[in-house]
Amino acid sequence: MPPAVVLGIDFGGTKIAIAVGDLDGNRLGEITVPAAAESGAAASLAATIVAGRGLLDRVAPGGELAGLGVSTFGIPGPDGVALAPAIDGWADVSLARELGAAFDRVPIRLVTDVKAAAQVEAERGALAGCDPAIYLNLGTGLAVAIVAGGTVLAGRHGASGEIGYNLRGLGDVGRGLDDRTPLEATVSGGALLTAAARVVPGITGAAFFGAVTEDPALAAVLDDFLTELSFHLVNLAVAVDPQRIAVGGGMVRAWDLIGPRLRAALDAAVPYPPELVIAAFPHDAPLIGALAHGVAAARGRPTGVGIVQKGIPG
Amino acid sequence: MPPAVVLGIDFGGTKIAIAVGDLDGNRLGEITVPAAAESGAAASLAATIVAGRGLLDRVAPGGELAGLGVSTFGIPGPDGVALAPAIDGWADVSLARELGAAFDRVPIRLVTDVKAAAQVEAERGALAGCDPAIYLNLGTGLAVAIVAGGTVLAGRHGASGEIGYNLRGLGDVGRGLDDRTPLEATVSGGALLTAAARVVPGITGAAFFGAVTEDPALAAVLDDFLTELSFHLVNLAVAVDPQRIAVGGGMVRAWDLIGPRLRAALDAAVPYPPELVIAAFPHDAPLIGALAHGVAAARGRPTGVGIVQKGIPG
Repeated sequence: MPPAVVLGIDFGGTKIAIAVGDLDGNRLGEITVPAAAESGAAASLAATIVAGRGLLDRVAPGGELAGLGVSTFGIPGPDGVALAPAIDGWADVSLARELGAAFDRVPIRLVTDVKAAAQVEAERGALAGCDPAIYLNLGTGLAVAIVAGGTVLAGRHGASGEIGYNLRGLGDVGRGLDDRTPLEATVSGGALLTAAARVVPGITGAAFFGAVTEDPALAAVLDDFLTELSFHLVNLAVAVDPQRIAVGGGMVRAWDLIGPRLRAALDAAVPYPPELVIAAFPHDAPLIGALAHGVAAARGRPTGVGIVQKGIPG
Repeated sequence: MPPAVVLGIDFGGTKIAIAVGDLDGNRLGEITVPAAAESGAAASLAATIVAGRGLLDRVAPGGELAGLGVSTFGIPGPDGVALAPAIDGWADVSLARELGAAFDRVPIRLVTDVKAAAQVEAERGALAGCDPAIYLNLGTGLAVAIVAGGTVLAGRHGASGEIGYNLRGLGDVGRGLDDRTPLEATVSGGALLTAAARVVPGITGAAFFGAVTEDPALAAVLDDFLTELSFHLVNLAVAVDPQRIAVGGGMVRAWDLIGPRLRAALDAAVPYPPELVIAAFPHDAPLIGALAHGVAAARGRPTGVGIVQKGIPG
């Protein structure tokens, strides 16, 4: 009989990454599918299930699926994913229920993607041994995780680090979410592309970073982005006094343009400027974390990351 | 022979509180002296030593002084107190050395006042059982402490929570401390009085809060203060997702004017709005913490608060 395997799924704002691993957490195969945000939650979930089954059949034919770990943007709960506007309908999807039904009621653990990534970086990546530390995710969205004593700070409702909801200025004080522009709408990979497309319609991320140093209008877009990101990162670093900040997410591909500006802002303002590095697994820490949670689900052991986890009995 | 006692000293921006306690931490007597900021660090320290000796003679004549605990604004280290601009020369005072010499080389523990206060609130005050939590000190200065798992987050250099150094706006990004106005210069008890005195020269804090609801110009001063405080508190609450925020410091005497505005700002903006309460010991938590550290110094045991502590061998 083939050995048992686990499945890890990372739901991102633009893509969904899926991996199969063994019970020691070694990755045996993976696949990526578009998040199809415009098609909504049901379509994304259906595509994920098809891709996951296909991957299992290819990588581990006949192998028992023993656990499923899921990373997602937002705060996963039993009846939906809170604080997850990137995909229409995600708020009302019970990932545990839907995936449990699709994958034969396998034990499931759900985690917030940025917290899962931070835990991976803290355990075996760029934040190992750093106390405290900050993980900054610059992907389609914006979020951070605070690491203290080797553990990710969960927050009372699993919502710590969701700085995409930050107020942007004094004029925002007292205004509700529908009456202000939250930080994520200006400081995130998605927001940067939207702003760049106002200058060059239809521009891609790669094209933007290729042209930005030659095009003053695009450079101004990036400048605004980095200034506002720096403001919020500096104030968070003052509050936490971290040893190190590690940055992950798709935008680290443009680190040469981003890193020096963040470095300078931290040096100028933070009483004890922290180290600033690219994450060890900038592009797949959430997937690695999902696999680790899949293993934990399979083995029925606590994951000890202090973040929201929901299981479905097998 | 009289029982042994400990001394606790809380160096504040406007006053120095001193207490004598027994080895169980019970307070036996106390005295307050002005901080005499204008006279500088040496004068403040000399006045403290005289007052401390006098208090010991009065409360515990002939009793052995077994430990000394000291709370101070700023980050106490072996050769001075960092991030402590409120009293001229405080940066270069070795509190451990000077107080050790003055008090017969008694074992000493030094802590940052707001962290000591937060630890007291977490152990036996308004933040007991709250995880995570934020302690906000609105005194002469401005600082917070983040409590996670019942422990105050120290920061890598003991400097977490020193949000008086925060950037105030996007125009501050990249500027050094001497080239910008740090938050504490506009959002603190001291800054509020300075701003109020531009409207009514020489006004006291009590007079300000007595007149503010009747005087539009003073009301505008308070409004600006509360708006900017709210901005920073909201963004910190988004990052931490605390169960509860407890507020201490002299300004809580005006809680009727302050509390509702902070409450409304949190409700409007934070995804999961935390509870907001006055601290259990709003005016003397740092002194209570200093006494507790004095007891710990006397007993030679670790205080476990994870904050900067320096001892001088007895």
